[in-house]
Amino acid sequence: MYVGELLKNLDRIPSGVPGLDELIGGGFLPGRVYVVTGPPGSGKTTLGMQFLAEGAKNDEKGLFIALFETPDIIVRDMLRYNLGILEYVNSKKIVFYDLGEILLSANRELSWDELFKLLLEIIKRENAKRVVIDSFSLFESFVTNPEGKKKELGRFVRKLRTMDITTLLLSEMLSSEKYTDEYYLADGVIVLHHFMRNYQMVRAIQILKMRGVPHDSNLKRMRFTNEGITVYKEAPI
Amino acid sequence: MYVGELLKNLDRIPSGVPGLDELIGGGFLPGRVYVVTGPPGSGKTTLGMQFLAEGAKNDEKGLFIALFETPDIIVRDMLRYNLGILEYVNSKKIVFYDLGEILLSANRELSWDELFKLLLEIIKRENAKRVVIDSFSLFESFVTNPEGKKKELGRFVRKLRTMDITTLLLSEMLSSEKYTDEYYLADGVIVLHHFMRNYQMVRAIQILKMRGVPHDSNLKRMRFTNEGITVYKEAPI
Amino acid sequence: MYVGELLKNLDRIPSGVPGLDELIGGGFLPGRVYVVTGPPGSGKTTLGMQFLAEGAKNDEKGLFIALFETPDIIVRDMLRYNLGILEYVNSKKIVFYDLGEILLSANRELSWDELFKLLLEIIKRENAKRVVIDSFSLFESFVTNPEGKKKELGRFVRKLRTMDITTLLLSEMLSSEKYTDEYYLADGVIVLHHFMRNYQMVRAIQILKMRGVPHDSNLKRMRFTNEGITVYKEAPI
Amino acid sequence: MYVGELLKNLDRIPSGVPGLDELIGGGFLPGRVYVVTGPPGSGKTTLGMQFLAEGAKNDEKGLFIALFETPDIIVRDMLRYNLGILEYVNSKKIVFYDLGEILLSANRELSWDELFKLLLEIIKRENAKRVVIDSFSLFESFVTNPEGKKKELGRFVRKLRTMDITTLLLSEMLSSEKYTDEYYLADGVIVLHHFMRNYQMVRAIQILKMRGVPHDSNLKRMRFTNEGITVYKEAPI
Amino acid sequence: MYVGELLKNLDRIPSGVPGLDELIGGGFLPGRVYVVTGPPGSGKTTLGMQFLAEGAKNDEKGLFIALFETPDIIVRDMLRYNLGILEYVNSKKIVFYDLGEILLSANRELSWDELFKLLLEIIKRENAKRVVIDSFSLFESFVTNPEGKKKELGRFVRKLRTMDITTLLLSEMLSSEKYTDEYYLADGVIVLHHFMRNYQMVRAIQILKMRGVPHDSNLKRMRFTNEGITVYKEAPI
Amino acid sequence: MYVGELLKNLDRIPSGVPGLDELIGGGFLPGRVYVVTGPPGSGKTTLGMQFLAEGAKNDEKGLFIALFETPDIIVRDMLRYNLGILEYVNSKKIVFYDLGEILLSANRELSWDELFKLLLEIIKRENAKRVVIDSFSLFESFVTNPEGKKKELGRFVRKLRTMDITTLLLSEMLSSEKYTDEYYLADGVIVLHHFMRNYQMVRAIQILKMRGVPHDSNLKRMRFTNEGITVYKEAPI
Repeated sequence: MYVGELLKNLDRIPSGVPGLDELIGGGFLPGRVYVVTGPPGSGKTTLGMQFLAEGAKNDEKGLFIALFETPDIIVRDMLRYNLGILEYVNSKKIVFYDLGEILLSANRELSWDELFKLLLEIIKRENAKRVVIDSFSLFESFVTNPEGKKKELGRFVRKLRTMDITTLLLSEMLSSEKYTDEYYLADGVIVLHHFMRNYQMVRAIQILKMRGVPHDSNLKRMRFTNEGITVYKEAPI
Repeated sequence: MYVGELLKNLDRIPSGVPGLDELIGGGFLPGRVYVVTGPPGSGKTTLGMQFLAEGAKNDEKGLFIALFETPDIIVRDMLRYNLGILEYVNSKKIVFYDLGEILLSANRELSWDELFKLLLEIIKRENAKRVVIDSFSLFESFVTNPEGKKKELGRFVRKLRTMDITTLLLSEMLSSEKYTDEYYLADGVIVLHHFMRNYQMVRAIQILKMRGVPHDSNLKRMRFTNEGITVYKEAPI
Repeated sequence: MYVGELLKNLDRIPSGVPGLDELIGGGFLPGRVYVVTGPPGSGKTTLGMQFLAEGAKNDEKGLFIALFETPDIIVRDMLRYNLGILEYVNSKKIVFYDLGEILLSANRELSWDELFKLLLEIIKRENAKRVVIDSFSLFESFVTNPEGKKKELGRFVRKLRTMDITTLLLSEMLSSEKYTDEYYLADGVIVLHHFMRNYQMVRAIQILKMRGVPHDSNLKRMRFTNEGITVYKEAPI
Repeated sequence: MYVGELLKNLDRIPSGVPGLDELIGGGFLPGRVYVVTGPPGSGKTTLGMQFLAEGAKNDEKGLFIALFETPDIIVRDMLRYNLGILEYVNSKKIVFYDLGEILLSANRELSWDELFKLLLEIIKRENAKRVVIDSFSLFESFVTNPEGKKKELGRFVRKLRTMDITTLLLSEMLSSEKYTDEYYLADGVIVLHHFMRNYQMVRAIQILKMRGVPHDSNLKRMRFTNEGITVYKEAPI
Repeated sequence: MYVGELLKNLDRIPSGVPGLDELIGGGFLPGRVYVVTGPPGSGKTTLGMQFLAEGAKNDEKGLFIALFETPDIIVRDMLRYNLGILEYVNSKKIVFYDLGEILLSANRELSWDELFKLLLEIIKRENAKRVVIDSFSLFESFVTNPEGKKKELGRFVRKLRTMDITTLLLSEMLSSEKYTDEYYLADGVIVLHHFMRNYQMVRAIQILKMRGVPHDSNLKRMRFTNEGITVYKEAPI
Repeated sequence: MYVGELLKNLDRIPSGVPGLDELIGGGFLPGRVYVVTGPPGSGKTTLGMQFLAEGAKNDEKGLFIALFETPDIIVRDMLRYNLGILEYVNSKKIVFYDLGEILLSANRELSWDELFKLLLEIIKRENAKRVVIDSFSLFESFVTNPEGKKKELGRFVRKLRTMDITTLLLSEMLSSEKYTDEYYLADGVIVLHHFMRNYQMVRAIQILKMRGVPHDSNLKRMRFTNEGITVYKEAPI
């Protein structure tokens, strides 16, 4: 093991979310897998699209693997932001893969093993540098039994690293007090919070975990702006 | 994918609930599926009928699929509001489908697959633009086993979108802290809250999630008036 | 569907509980099913007997279906109130049906289907206008498996409506935070609360739900008086 | 049903616990079954022995059915109180039945049905007027499967009533927030509380439920004195 | 049953824990079984060794039955206290039984029945007056199925009483809010608490239950000193 | 058993974490097994690497057994600290064992028995004085059924002690209120806390348990510095 090899991927992958890179020492690390989690309506899909748009802007191909939402609906919903998504879709800088359609048409359920193999095939074929899976939690609906998930997820993460692809797993938060397997296996965990205070919805982002990177894990104010999610330096309240 | 096609359904579907459209940027989006959830007695059925009456007023046919309540009881209970329901029922602008009767007479339980197929058939046959299912949570009583729900629900939602129908799934809230599958799969989630404060029942409405639409997700005061549910701009207390 | 038919049963069924009718717009609706729930010792049976005594006073026959308590014990316990129960029992204005005795002597358990059929038979035979079942929750002890309850309960409620009988289902509260199936299927839910405050037991009544009727759902002070349960206009504390 | 018959058992059964009878209108009712519940060390056995000693003082035979504690240990532990237990044991006014010994020697487990039959046999044979079962919750260890408990308990309670015996079921409190079947089936529930306040153990008694009797259900201060449990009129703190 | 026989064992068994005997009326009762429970690191093993050292000082043989810790490790860890353990071990006043080693070498799992028989055999053979089992909760790892525990534990406790041995069952606290079977079956329950207050670990001891003995059940300050656990008269804070 | 033998391993094993040894009387004990637990991102891996680097500095060979993270990723992530890891890896003072790779390639799952045997083999072969297993909780993914864990873990711990190796088991914290088997079986438990206060992430370390060693179990402030985790004498806030 040489220092050279170790240092070669000290480059950062900018997130595309204004204010986020400053919390994680300049951006994501290449070849890593990150979890983005939060309750319904917290902005996970939006963050994922900002991530891909940022890559597309720099000519990196992005792949969005959709489980239940169809690509046209996602693109339609993103029109409210000035991210230029439509342009990138037309120029194939951002490619959608309607995995839900494939899985719904399949005549049988898959094992975790098969599912992850299928994902790797798609990712290889599209040859993207940035991948978003929306949502990772929904895979369980298509899998025969829940066992083996942790093990196969571990194998999947190992493979992604060898391919030098940066991946965001969007994940539905079941409870703010429970940590799921993904949290421990992923290289980082970003939590999108929303909570009531005096009957007002307060939104915040938090870097719960970020391996190999000095990071600020305090809650930060977050808002939906015309640029998508925007992160601010101060506490949410 | 063309901008034209994407923008063509930027029209809004007014909700029929005074004060609600202002929270969701003018109304619902066509071809989408929304969840309306809340505890017993929180006004879900009332909101659903306001939604159909609004359509009927504009000559859009509405379909109310009832699981346990019989149509005559629902209509009878709505007489306390000035919604003109009876007139719309007589002019067939609002059609009731007593699905409960059908399912109770059936001599076997259905799978989720069959249930959703049946729903699609009814919806197609009635050719309505607005659909309310009251209540979605009750389907579980008629289904052989709980598995496959998430997957088949995903398939159902995809189909509804291709038919350009706006649908409200009324859903019983089991716990205010748990998110169900519908919350993640639906395009929007409206929560009807009620809670005690100094032994007074306070009612509030909240737009928990609303895809593709800038929305206000703070709790808003809500009251039962002669017009049904009315939403106010201020916080509930 | 004609307005005439819809309006014909706008009559109200007085509850017999001083102060309660004012909270529910004059009384119960005929042909409907209501749940009365609360913890042990909260007054469910007393409320049920007040309901029947009120009917008996107006020459309406009342039927009390007892699951575990024997009729003589119930009557004995009601002697502490000035409800005239004994007189009504002797004049057969109030009839007790010791269903517990029947079920305990049966040599096998019933399905939900059979149980509800049996209940309907008893109700038809006695030809009563008011029915109290004490307690609905105890049926589960006599039923082979818990499945099918929701569905068969839905069927039962539909039947009761066609018979123009007003029914109270007394139901044991398992937890103040969980809603049971009956809450959603019934036309109304009345909750008898008791809670500690400074080591004093405070009692309150709440109209959690009441379909088709404008109602006050705030907690109201409630006390046991010589007339049974009495409801007051103010908050419990 | 005649008033005479109903009123004949309006006599009260004094509890033997100083201060308790005043909370329950003079004492227990004859022929009824009461639950006494509380956490470990809260005084359930002591209360049960006071109940039997009070009867013995008035020449009523008392029966103590012990599940795990052996009679000699129970008597030994009661020597710290001035209840005269030893004298009553020697004069057979209080009889112990070591049911635990019988059940531990049995070569098979019983069904709930058989267990309750056995209990009724013992009670009949001993011909006592007051019965204490310590502890009712422990029966589950000796029973093949938990099903049927509620039903058979209901049957048992019905039988005890016809025998004009007053019974206390001592019951281990599993959680202060959960109500068990016995609570609903019994004619009364007495809760022995203990809780921490400023690191001091505070003890209190509460009449959670008492059928047919006007009662005070506020928490009352309770202490262990030389006379056993003593109940005071004021709140515990 | 004669008073003489009952009173013969009114002697007390000093606990060896400075300050503890004053809370329990002079010490433990002979022939009884006590539970000592607490979270990891709360001092259960230390308390057990103090109990045995106190006996050894008065020439009573003590037996320590170890489940997972090996005797040499336990003795080594006790060297930090001035209890003279090493001396007592060498003079065989304190004997260790490495039951874990036996059970780990066994080629099959035991039933609760067999396990308790084995324990009784060991206790009889060693002829000790004081016995500590560390830890009772770990037995479940060696037992084929969890059923029958309560019953067999009841049988075991009965046997120990006839042998005039005082026993401490050290038990891991799973949750401070749940009571386990041992709590109800044992003659006494001592709880070792630790909790955070202003980020300081506060330690306390509490006599939750102590049959036949007037006792102080308030929380008392507790500290690890050179003499092992020491109990103070005042509240922990 | 001789004092000499007992005292021979009173040497301390410095932890390598600035400030930690002072809380545990100078360091870990040789031949013992410690659990280091905490939520995702709390610094478990970092602490483990500091422990090995400290050994390497003193020429003690260290072994890092990795379950899911690959060695190169771990080393890469540690480059942000001045621990000299890379140098120690190159000089084989710190050896990585990619157990995850082995287990993922295996064509069947292991029993707990086989897994612990495999671990012991690896540890023996590498002949290390310090061992870190990251993470112990992940083993469950590779094991056929959860039973037998406690027993085999007990056997494993016994074996490690005879080999005079100091081991850290890094363990994922599932809930801050639940204690797992490892907590009770291990010689010590170190908890890495993080919690929100005014939307700031506060980090703290706590010695929950440390057998045979007087220790300070208050929460202590902890920070990530260039030297890895650093522990401070004061409370975290």
